[in-house]
Amino acid sequence: MGTYHCQSLVQRIPAAELAAVADVTSAAAGRAAAFAPGAQATTEPESLLADPSIKAVVIASPNDTHARFIEEAARAGKHVFCEKPIALDLDSADAALAEVQRRRVKLQIGFQRRFDAAYRRAREAIAAGELGHLELIAGTTRDPKPPSLAQLRRSGGLFTDTAIHDLDAVRFLSGLEATEVYATASRLVLPEGGDEGFVDTAIICLRLETGALAVITNSLRAAYGYEVGMEVMGGRGKLAVGQEEQVRLRRYDAEGVRHDHVGWFLDRFGEAYVQELAHFIECVRSDREPEVSGADGRAALVLGLLAQRSAREGRPLAVSGVV
Amino acid sequence: MGTYHCQSLVQRIPAAELAAVADVTSAAAGRAAAFAPGAQATTEPESLLADPSIKAVVIASPNDTHARFIEEAARAGKHVFCEKPIALDLDSADAALAEVQRRRVKLQIGFQRRFDAAYRRAREAIAAGELGHLELIAGTTRDPKPPSLAQLRRSGGLFTDTAIHDLDAVRFLSGLEATEVYATASRLVLPEGGDEGFVDTAIICLRLETGALAVITNSLRAAYGYEVGMEVMGGRGKLAVGQEEQVRLRRYDAEGVRHDHVGWFLDRFGEAYVQELAHFIECVRSDREPEVSGADGRAALVLGLLAQRSAREGRPLAVSGVV
Amino acid sequence: MGTYHCQSLVQRIPAAELAAVADVTSAAAGRAAAFAPGAQATTEPESLLADPSIKAVVIASPNDTHARFIEEAARAGKHVFCEKPIALDLDSADAALAEVQRRRVKLQIGFQRRFDAAYRRAREAIAAGELGHLELIAGTTRDPKPPSLAQLRRSGGLFTDTAIHDLDAVRFLSGLEATEVYATASRLVLPEGGDEGFVDTAIICLRLETGALAVITNSLRAAYGYEVGMEVMGGRGKLAVGQEEQVRLRRYDAEGVRHDHVGWFLDRFGEAYVQELAHFIECVRSDREPEVSGADGRAALVLGLLAQRSAREGRPLAVSGVV
Amino acid sequence: MGTYHCQSLVQRIPAAELAAVADVTSAAAGRAAAFAPGAQATTEPESLLADPSIKAVVIASPNDTHARFIEEAARAGKHVFCEKPIALDLDSADAALAEVQRRRVKLQIGFQRRFDAAYRRAREAIAAGELGHLELIAGTTRDPKPPSLAQLRRSGGLFTDTAIHDLDAVRFLSGLEATEVYATASRLVLPEGGDEGFVDTAIICLRLETGALAVITNSLRAAYGYEVGMEVMGGRGKLAVGQEEQVRLRRYDAEGVRHDHVGWFLDRFGEAYVQELAHFIECVRSDREPEVSGADGRAALVLGLLAQRSAREGRPLAVSGVV
Repeated sequence: MGTYHCQSLVQRIPAAELAAVADVTSAAAGRAAAFAPGAQATTEPESLLADPSIKAVVIASPNDTHARFIEEAARAGKHVFCEKPIALDLDSADAALAEVQRRRVKLQIGFQRRFDAAYRRAREAIAAGELGHLELIAGTTRDPKPPSLAQLRRSGGLFTDTAIHDLDAVRFLSGLEATEVYATASRLVLPEGGDEGFVDTAIICLRLETGALAVITNSLRAAYGYEVGMEVMGGRGKLAVGQEEQVRLRRYDAEGVRHDHVGWFLDRFGEAYVQELAHFIECVRSDREPEVSGADGRAALVLGLLAQRSAREGRPLAVSGVV
Repeated sequence: MGTYHCQSLVQRIPAAELAAVADVTSAAAGRAAAFAPGAQATTEPESLLADPSIKAVVIASPNDTHARFIEEAARAGKHVFCEKPIALDLDSADAALAEVQRRRVKLQIGFQRRFDAAYRRAREAIAAGELGHLELIAGTTRDPKPPSLAQLRRSGGLFTDTAIHDLDAVRFLSGLEATEVYATASRLVLPEGGDEGFVDTAIICLRLETGALAVITNSLRAAYGYEVGMEVMGGRGKLAVGQEEQVRLRRYDAEGVRHDHVGWFLDRFGEAYVQELAHFIECVRSDREPEVSGADGRAALVLGLLAQRSAREGRPLAVSGVV
Repeated sequence: MGTYHCQSLVQRIPAAELAAVADVTSAAAGRAAAFAPGAQATTEPESLLADPSIKAVVIASPNDTHARFIEEAARAGKHVFCEKPIALDLDSADAALAEVQRRRVKLQIGFQRRFDAAYRRAREAIAAGELGHLELIAGTTRDPKPPSLAQLRRSGGLFTDTAIHDLDAVRFLSGLEATEVYATASRLVLPEGGDEGFVDTAIICLRLETGALAVITNSLRAAYGYEVGMEVMGGRGKLAVGQEEQVRLRRYDAEGVRHDHVGWFLDRFGEAYVQELAHFIECVRSDREPEVSGADGRAALVLGLLAQRSAREGRPLAVSGVV
Repeated sequence: MGTYHCQSLVQRIPAAELAAVADVTSAAAGRAAAFAPGAQATTEPESLLADPSIKAVVIASPNDTHARFIEEAARAGKHVFCEKPIALDLDSADAALAEVQRRRVKLQIGFQRRFDAAYRRAREAIAAGELGHLELIAGTTRDPKPPSLAQLRRSGGLFTDTAIHDLDAVRFLSGLEATEVYATASRLVLPEGGDEGFVDTAIICLRLETGALAVITNSLRAAYGYEVGMEVMGGRGKLAVGQEEQVRLRRYDAEGVRHDHVGWFLDRFGEAYVQELAHFIECVRSDREPEVSGADGRAALVLGLLAQRSAREGRPLAVSGVV
């Protein structure tokens, strides 16, 4: 993701200048920095934070480092774009958010779906009342291949890494907060090994503040590729965001009709990733608050952590108790 | 087709009573008659025409017998439903139509698409001006398997047997008459043998009386099944009638997404065939003129014959010269 | 539904003979009986049960009478086709099933989806291992208009009247039993009045015996019509049963592209209703057991009642405790 | 188009350097040059051709200047990327091609569909024999809004400006040459004025060297947006390239289901335009011949001019006579 963001900053966002790239792997830093002629590559993120000519940072490190890097960057007075999730626990998230507020820097969380044309138009239509009162939301994210156990340990697992996109999308599309969370999950796909209770298949039910209901299903492996979609139903109708086909080619033969399926997340959201970064750069330059705030990052994290606990404890949990 | 019509008359059209079935093959007549307990089976169509208790006949014999049977049935005072085409040449068609008029019997030609819900709604929308002035029509019929040479000889071939449906559909949907016909055709699929110039792949261009254009493509073999569709475009938009999928089941796997394709004409038009017969029975009972007249049958035949000649002569032909 | 069944028996199932129709409303009985010339109409179902020439009955009365009618019909030695649900409580279901077993009559429950071509092919593909091990099932039923409170009282409400179709479909498609049920529901659509806790919007989560998960969403009102669908995902891919469009006509204009949506259940399942009855008649005539048994009816009822209780109590419930 | 190409060269094709932009309008040249910090803007294309540091030119001027600019650029030793059509008459095309050959510069014609993922995959599948022998090709291009008469005069009209894309696509996908061309056309949409015989609605029929047939329909106005598609049918099946929807959002309400339609060509082919330029730059740098040659540009022009003449003369024309 970091490499893609570097490329976007250099090639697609003229208002941005890529000054430096830090990565624990020197070669990776070099590759990403290579997009911009003068960009520096380093394995020391601290050196970037110490550089007064750098105005903003983009954090695309493992999930378990997000909160710490946000906090350090804020302390150094840098504006921050950080991939989701904001943190893997609420204390770290709150510490980071406190520092952001204290230093009056901007923070945008990488919920790129909010910058996808389909989600945006759905949001606008819902906000304009096209659906009437909302009743039922159903969303899904299915990844093509499960991460390794090592990756799961750093990402926090399905609820904080994958489901968090859908949890944010429910909040974004509905404009509503959840009051109760229930989740049930299974481990059907992940390889043997590890006893941290990682799951790969899950259902999350949300009760929203108006009584509207939402359900999210997640799978860490889908044999047919990458699937993301969300339906929002209200008294006047339904909106459905989704994409199956990547290349607009249909094949007809004795077996029937075939088309391809989106293979991975950059095929679906490549442009949204560019747009979210462009928005961040524009906010930094024009001193506006990003549309996706640290509070949004925290709210989705709360739901993700509650879902994780609900699945473990086998009972629905009230949101109010946690926040 | 005759068997299907018998079943429809018995099981789906309570107002009809199946009195007798004639077929050159005794067994076939018996099978079709078996749908109705008391129906008589015969190999002598004349006996049906001589039976004064029989009020109407349904003709589903080979194309080259249509005109003669219409004429004989009309002479015997029977109302007539006849499969398309009305005839294989204009003289026969005119003789049959003259007898129909003389005997004041009703005649409906089996253009079943006119009774399909999609075509009907398209027609209504166009007649109501939803598209504005028509500009371009594009239609296709593709059969799953080519007929034998023996069948082609009796059907008259692609232009009078297959294309005639599309030619009628252009007239039905547009409400316009053609002024010029051009066709080009190839023999790419049919087995060797026969030198009557049968073709299996064709394009027919029509210029309509308003200057609007229409094009029809036909294939006597489609590896993926039975395909029928028509687009009508006007100043305000486009209507497209078509159906790919038969069973509403999608299969997702590592190869992408698949669904089936309509396999043959009864899968697509089974209900339309019932509805056209029900309309005919209703017209007979209530003494109304059928919506699809002998004149419609003749008009489509004119275009089919002109297309056939155009393909042979390699030049566009004016319609006015023939009628 | 009773009227539709009578019409199917008379017009579509030659092996059946409609002898008599009983309805509390005399006129309704008369209308349904009118499909068959000699059929008797009555307001006394007992008279049918007392008639020794009647071999089988089709029960399409209000849900709260199903179990009693099954029991009485079985006692009278009639084979029974009964609409879902088999009963509104387990005791009644068990009493009916005991009588069915005692009298050795056949009983088929009206889960017509099992006779829909798409569901059947999906079932066959899954049983043949096309999907590998199942992981996640997601289904929905959304009715176009909510029933009145009076109707809800007799139907038992969303869980036993609507969701029960999806609960059966999960069992049918997966071939698996549920071990745990969780449901959450809201009343967002139903008119004021009544304090029986009726809901109109619900999510039901099932944990299946293999650890696979299933989720069902239900709505008693959908502004766009009647929506039914189910996805089954396994290690090798996904199958999706669903239908949006009724008439195969697309309209293109300055607003984009439009097509219609299936409007109500007979548009979607009209043929499946005929096929299930034909299967029942065939089973009666050839002395075979119907594919959809009383045990299937009971198993779906168990899940529906558990979902109802789970939604009320706000916690997941084990299936084992109830059965 | 020139502006878009400049942006692509600067932002999407790192291997390219935008040195200068010439436009008859100074402001337009300035806007396009502004994408690259050091790029020069001029109203004198000759000054670019005289600049020895410039290695290649991209021609996106009006159609009636293409051939002259190709010739002049070739004479100046520049490699040339030129928008379609290569010229508006064969003599100019041949003069330009002769100069290109004499100066041994590279020439690529802007048939960007050849760089669209769907067309490319279709081409690969056909070349690999997936369809068997080709039988029938049907393609369409419909522009959202007609050009002004002034624009038509410079573009040469429908056949050389719009249809030429489809004519090239037939050659590209099939790998076959046409032997006969027939076209029929109408003026239904264009405003009054001008007597040059411009048309806005056309059908073009091609007979290919194997006897396979192709048909193209074109409209200069489509109320619903920009429509481009092509079907290729062979003995084993059919491939269909097409795209209706732009944003993957469906709206369900009491009127049915709606989605948007692609609005204009950059929505559909934006990425293909980048890829064709990247291919050209790569060919220049690695001294390879571009995949879309000057001969391809000439061959499509021949068909476009023959279609134009056929429509005027009302008869099919052999290709052999012209080449």
